[in-house]
Amino acid sequence: MDNAGKVLIAQGGGPTAVINQTLAGIVLEARKFPRISNVYGALNGVEGIVNEDFIDLTQETSHNLEQVALTPSSALLTTRIKPNENYCKEIFKVLKAHDIRNFFYIGGNDSADTVRIVNEQAKSANYNLCAIHVPKTIDNDLTENDHTPGYGSSARFVVQAFSGINLDTKALGGVYIGVVMGRNAGFLTAAASLAQKFPGDGPHLIYLPERKFSLEQFLQDVKIVHDKYGYCVIAVSEGIKDAAGTPIISTLKNNLDTDSHGNVTMSGTGALGDLLSEYIKDKLAINRVRSDTFGYLQRSFLGCVSDVDQHEAREAGERAVHFALWNRQTEGSVTIQRTGYYSVNYHLTPLELVAGKTRYMPDEFINQTGNHVTDAFKFYVRPLLGSGLLSPAQLRSPRVPKLLLPNS
Amino acid sequence: MDNAGKVLIAQGGGPTAVINQTLAGIVLEARKFPRISNVYGALNGVEGIVNEDFIDLTQETSHNLEQVALTPSSALLTTRIKPNENYCKEIFKVLKAHDIRNFFYIGGNDSADTVRIVNEQAKSANYNLCAIHVPKTIDNDLTENDHTPGYGSSARFVVQAFSGINLDTKALGGVYIGVVMGRNAGFLTAAASLAQKFPGDGPHLIYLPERKFSLEQFLQDVKIVHDKYGYCVIAVSEGIKDAAGTPIISTLKNNLDTDSHGNVTMSGTGALGDLLSEYIKDKLAINRVRSDTFGYLQRSFLGCVSDVDQHEAREAGERAVHFALWNRQTEGSVTIQRTGYYSVNYHLTPLELVAGKTRYMPDEFINQTGNHVTDAFKFYVRPLLGSGLLSPAQLRSPRVPKLLLPNS
Repeated sequence: MDNAGKVLIAQGGGPTAVINQTLAGIVLEARKFPRISNVYGALNGVEGIVNEDFIDLTQETSHNLEQVALTPSSALLTTRIKPNENYCKEIFKVLKAHDIRNFFYIGGNDSADTVRIVNEQAKSANYNLCAIHVPKTIDNDLTENDHTPGYGSSARFVVQAFSGINLDTKALGGVYIGVVMGRNAGFLTAAASLAQKFPGDGPHLIYLPERKFSLEQFLQDVKIVHDKYGYCVIAVSEGIKDAAGTPIISTLKNNLDTDSHGNVTMSGTGALGDLLSEYIKDKLAINRVRSDTFGYLQRSFLGCVSDVDQHEAREAGERAVHFALWNRQTEGSVTIQRTGYYSVNYHLTPLELVAGKTRYMPDEFINQTGNHVTDAFKFYVRPLLGSGLLSPAQLRSPRVPKLLLPNS
Repeated sequence: MDNAGKVLIAQGGGPTAVINQTLAGIVLEARKFPRISNVYGALNGVEGIVNEDFIDLTQETSHNLEQVALTPSSALLTTRIKPNENYCKEIFKVLKAHDIRNFFYIGGNDSADTVRIVNEQAKSANYNLCAIHVPKTIDNDLTENDHTPGYGSSARFVVQAFSGINLDTKALGGVYIGVVMGRNAGFLTAAASLAQKFPGDGPHLIYLPERKFSLEQFLQDVKIVHDKYGYCVIAVSEGIKDAAGTPIISTLKNNLDTDSHGNVTMSGTGALGDLLSEYIKDKLAINRVRSDTFGYLQRSFLGCVSDVDQHEAREAGERAVHFALWNRQTEGSVTIQRTGYYSVNYHLTPLELVAGKTRYMPDEFINQTGNHVTDAFKFYVRPLLGSGLLSPAQLRSPRVPKLLLPNS
């Protein structure tokens, strides 16, 4: 196919710590091809295409592109818009007007679907277009991928956070609940397990959206851990649901509102972590219960990044250009396959296998009681966290015999 | 004074990322003195003293001590107990029984007060004791100190967080509120200002407990910034209060409860960030308003540390031992003075000048309108953040002329 002309790149969906590596990979690689006249970037994803908000990335220094690659969040800005057929027609009109022959959309499964629709419209208009989806998502929930760029760095943030939180909660006692992103897939929450180093380390309990969440079982789990270790650290996916599929945040609100204890008056927009904390305080009479919602820190924190994730995000962008400009393939989604421990390769996969689909944690990654992960998951996730991860240490000094009190 | 005998170390109050550097500094330095028979650590601060929960740090490898020094949180565990006279009598009884002649308590202003009381009791009992307070606090609110160990690393976390948050919010639009620790002193929240690099970068607004917080002024500030830049990033101290001294979290609850709009039903334990978000959504009709409470991440995150802070925490511990064992001083609080840009020195300051006192942000560090910091503050805080801080980059490509839409 003749795809001489212009390249257009856009970024969609939630930002990640390495999405600009992919951007830099595409720009730097595409600029090497003489038949490419310009490399454009659309601002704010598909919105920027429809509005013709383009910048000319051909006029960007390589040095600055390398610096942007190290910068978290989407340098081209982003959008939450999920285009329908008509919206895609508008997109296609603009691509045609600007003689854009190669379209790279970096995003999740919704972005893959946009690429799919735009590509169909180009085909039926007999317009030569190469439309390629390049993966990113901290949720790690794209089908056909061993994992996705963005996940490793966010997972590393979660591990570093829980490593510290384990020690902080151990030092002060009580219960800690960390609420991690992931409405449908628990991969990011599960990464917290890598914070466990010494016997007794937290997170002691991990609750994922792939398993039905029972408040009774939860209380029992917390009590057992707290009794045993004197503290309890819990990682919870924001998306946990009960047996009926109702989000726990709704269940808890009702539960606490109708409670007869009187001192619990939760309602409104209280976060899941706050609600679970109140519930534990109320039912288990543990005084010190704290929770944090990791929120936007876990996807955009400057300087917490997996080098493996950086390299793969970069390569995914470069390979996307190879598929388009060397191999002259007209459509597809770049996917990552694991080929060794640890090595990967990149394929171009039909868009319809990725578009609009969600991948979940496989059963073998979740323990039998549904409140933690398996070693198989730890084996899976470890290389994605990258190199140079600090390992906490603890004192090993012997006890001194008591002189005044009876030694116990 | 003859302080031959044992050394006892304890850690009090909230953990920090470098409090174990101070511990390692004391242990490694004290073990060099032949007249010191043992170096004990009390578990859980003063509670561990009263309960004789001691470990013998003389039997700890140097390698492991160095590893523990790199580990956040209090390796000896900690306590929130503020001992009164009677509690201090119990402490003193145990010190005597174990022939402890040197007591180092690493903590904030409450810990300094404990050291002061114990020392008085030793004096009136004619018991030779050297009692020294070694500073730590992420709040940076100890008097007589230019700054305190623990602050620089937490400040670095806040800068890295807001650097990413600025880019994340810019990419998606809307308003973001980050709630930072600091009930009385705004130093940690103010550090967010160092995340601003390019013109227009956030945090655009910074609210500190040192200034009365007005909800009307707040709304006006947010509207001006959001209109100008299309997004608005805000750093807020957890301790902000209104003109009457009422915490804003209480003011907001009442305000929102009695609001006639009907769709706001906040009550209970909703976090300050959630309440402020609801308030903005309600009053300014901005759709995307998000907030995160940085919580425990900002003081214990593994691997986000200022090397300057590490070195000073270590030196504060070493110098404490020097004051006790070389200089044979019997009491005091180790304080840090700034001697150049950037260099420091350590003094032993009378305990009563530090104990129970709080330092606030000086006026010259806060801007006139009370919604941001001055360059004087940035100059003050920059060296404390340490080396190797990543600097975000942004694209500088020229705009492409529109072909279909009118160019604006």
